[in-house]
Amino acid sequence: MEFLTGITPKETMELDMLVRPELAGSKVKVNGFVHAIRAMGDVVFVVLRKRGGLLQCVFEEGVSELSAKQVRESQTVELSGRLELDERAPHGIEIRVTGGRILSAPYAALPLPIGKWKLNTSLEAKLDYRSISLRNLRERAKFRIQEGIVRGFRDYLYSQQFTEIHTPKIGAKGAEGGSNIFKLDYFHRPAVLAQSPQFYKQMMVGVFDRVFETAPVFRAEKHNTKRHLNEYTSLDFEMGYIGSFTDLMEMETGFLQFTMKLLETEYKKELELLGIRLPDTKRIPTVRFDRAKELVAEKYSRQIRNPYDLEPEEEQLIGQYFKEEYNADFVFVTHYPSKKRPFYAMDDPEDTRFTLSFDLLFHGLEITTGGQRIHDYQQLCDKIAARGMSEEGMEFYLNTFKCGMPPHGGLGIGLERLTMKLVGEDNVRETTLFPRDLSRLEP
Amino acid sequence: MEFLTGITPKETMELDMLVRPELAGSKVKVNGFVHAIRAMGDVVFVVLRKRGGLLQCVFEEGVSELSAKQVRESQTVELSGRLELDERAPHGIEIRVTGGRILSAPYAALPLPIGKWKLNTSLEAKLDYRSISLRNLRERAKFRIQEGIVRGFRDYLYSQQFTEIHTPKIGAKGAEGGSNIFKLDYFHRPAVLAQSPQFYKQMMVGVFDRVFETAPVFRAEKHNTKRHLNEYTSLDFEMGYIGSFTDLMEMETGFLQFTMKLLETEYKKELELLGIRLPDTKRIPTVRFDRAKELVAEKYSRQIRNPYDLEPEEEQLIGQYFKEEYNADFVFVTHYPSKKRPFYAMDDPEDTRFTLSFDLLFHGLEITTGGQRIHDYQQLCDKIAARGMSEEGMEFYLNTFKCGMPPHGGLGIGLERLTMKLVGEDNVRETTLFPRDLSRLEP
Repeated sequence: MEFLTGITPKETMELDMLVRPELAGSKVKVNGFVHAIRAMGDVVFVVLRKRGGLLQCVFEEGVSELSAKQVRESQTVELSGRLELDERAPHGIEIRVTGGRILSAPYAALPLPIGKWKLNTSLEAKLDYRSISLRNLRERAKFRIQEGIVRGFRDYLYSQQFTEIHTPKIGAKGAEGGSNIFKLDYFHRPAVLAQSPQFYKQMMVGVFDRVFETAPVFRAEKHNTKRHLNEYTSLDFEMGYIGSFTDLMEMETGFLQFTMKLLETEYKKELELLGIRLPDTKRIPTVRFDRAKELVAEKYSRQIRNPYDLEPEEEQLIGQYFKEEYNADFVFVTHYPSKKRPFYAMDDPEDTRFTLSFDLLFHGLEITTGGQRIHDYQQLCDKIAARGMSEEGMEFYLNTFKCGMPPHGGLGIGLERLTMKLVGEDNVRETTLFPRDLSRLEP
Repeated sequence: MEFLTGITPKETMELDMLVRPELAGSKVKVNGFVHAIRAMGDVVFVVLRKRGGLLQCVFEEGVSELSAKQVRESQTVELSGRLELDERAPHGIEIRVTGGRILSAPYAALPLPIGKWKLNTSLEAKLDYRSISLRNLRERAKFRIQEGIVRGFRDYLYSQQFTEIHTPKIGAKGAEGGSNIFKLDYFHRPAVLAQSPQFYKQMMVGVFDRVFETAPVFRAEKHNTKRHLNEYTSLDFEMGYIGSFTDLMEMETGFLQFTMKLLETEYKKELELLGIRLPDTKRIPTVRFDRAKELVAEKYSRQIRNPYDLEPEEEQLIGQYFKEEYNADFVFVTHYPSKKRPFYAMDDPEDTRFTLSFDLLFHGLEITTGGQRIHDYQQLCDKIAARGMSEEGMEFYLNTFKCGMPPHGGLGIGLERLTMKLVGEDNVRETTLFPRDLSRLEP
């Protein structure tokens, strides 16, 4: 009988293991994608693309039993050789090849010039050939940064005693109702895809106090803008026993600070590759919704058209205002009008036209919506009635409140938007692996 | 202008902060759900349910300005008092209450006796009142263990240089075809829900070498068994440059070992609450599919009815066999018949009736399916043709292989099944927050 006891060390070495001056002169074995080939007379430079970055391998005439002539772009190969230090090579090292073998070979040339520093291709082409365009180092790096954000979110919340949950994406009725819902047939019963984990995460506050989820959400919105997707990854948390909704904004500030540190330490290479200057998260200003509108109207000589709504241009100007006046990258806009928030939002007892809620703007773009929720059963029923809504399909949600719930609130962060702003892109599709929008259902 | 600078310490204390003998006699403030009330003459014991566990609070006649008479089950409260050590109380501490306030109150009695040690309720009732039944400490603990598994999966794979990805759940065609697919209308185009991230994770191996995803998958299977769900959380990974499919099984063994250690250290309380003895992951036996059938047929005098399929009873007996013969909790069954595996599975070059694939059984239940994939474009096309399948809808997948792909493989783990076996349940719904099955679409 054979037994497995865990991973066995690989003979082949990764970049972080290779970039060590004390290894100069030693025999090493590596593998990777053939990213680029440059023939210089008797010497051929074969640049491998590895998960850690590029690695220069040098074929000298007659030295290796595997001839440089057999090596072609987009093959994957395993090479043996001597590691040498060379300042001109990526990471200051190169492999003088003595042998190797071809692991796999392509059947066609790449449709995009992925070897270039900047992939000067249309967004459409990048998305059409997504599995190829991401082979470009800088395109790939954006999604490493995205990983860092999700990891930061989870690790910070674990440290704050949140419990991770997994809530269903197929349900009988949309959590927040409305028309922007994808419908499907569920064994001959009508069903919908979750627009958000809202109801579930609230209900789980009564169980775990603090919960979070990082999962896809689905919105059948017919927006066709640079900042909308029909499926995206939502970073959601919900916490009980809050003193006020400021607790929620403070928790988000803590998450952002934690994540920036994580990116600085664990994703340094990617930050450098993309030339990212991390935003300031030390202190994040807060401003009331109505006050923000006034400030922007005054400073930029703009008329307030609708006192109960923020236009995208206004959001942008609020971002600009706080950058100019306070050098702030983020700003919490608080006390959104009740009309513009869902029924479960807690109205401000001091002025019920407004809610104890907030959005977080990052360089003028909304990346988070959050706030305190109503936790009293009767208050919730009253608000549903006042809005002319029906309780139908919400019985299990309402019953939870009937059985008692602590004061609580939470928020949802759009992962792709946050990534987009962080890496300095201006279309959310640039920071979505496989975007879904009005026209795009593939790849 | 107000600024937020991160979380501010709370006045109220959590259980891990309270269980410190040196605090005996000090004034503390706590909050929580009123879990149980026991009146003993002049003294009333109010047991709070907190995220960390139970906390006993003692009201003595006339001491607290908040009277014990005002306190009712399922309220949430904030209490002040003196911390005292008492061996008879949970965690050896209690709070002698001097004051406090009611934060929220219920409108109805609980439909289930959640205060009991074992919630002796039917599964149906537990699921119908999910947000209430999970308030039982032991019910709740199962999902803390589930968190630990997902966390272990991610943290182990991060340490092995995997990149986390987020792939779309709505697509134009199912990754593995077949009829078990949920269909939906996507802006007047036919679309489906992802059965697995298979195609996407494979394509991303060409980008990141090693990728993983922890996300929902959707299967419109009409099975109504204790181990099937129509929506579940799949822990998927895919890795490039494998030497053989043993690399994949070793990686899974590494994950299991890592996760058991994580559970032992970070989820000790929950393991104790549930009385869980963690399974042995030090060495996991492997056995060929055909050999496993023979072993079981011999030992348990069972006829082999179909040499190309494993019946659930056979899986169970394989588990029993390896427990009895080797005291093994897990066993890798390898070399599944080609007929029973999808087209992208790599056939064994030594006998193409079988594949370089495996299932992992945990106490006789399949919790993982994995294997090496075909990485050569032509070989993939040939297999599609040989099966009489069409390449339609797979163009973007196949084009990726045309442009070159490293040898690779991967696996998918059913989170709810793994949790179920780990906590000793026998119905996967017990370890699913909000299960979706043939009859259940709510809550």
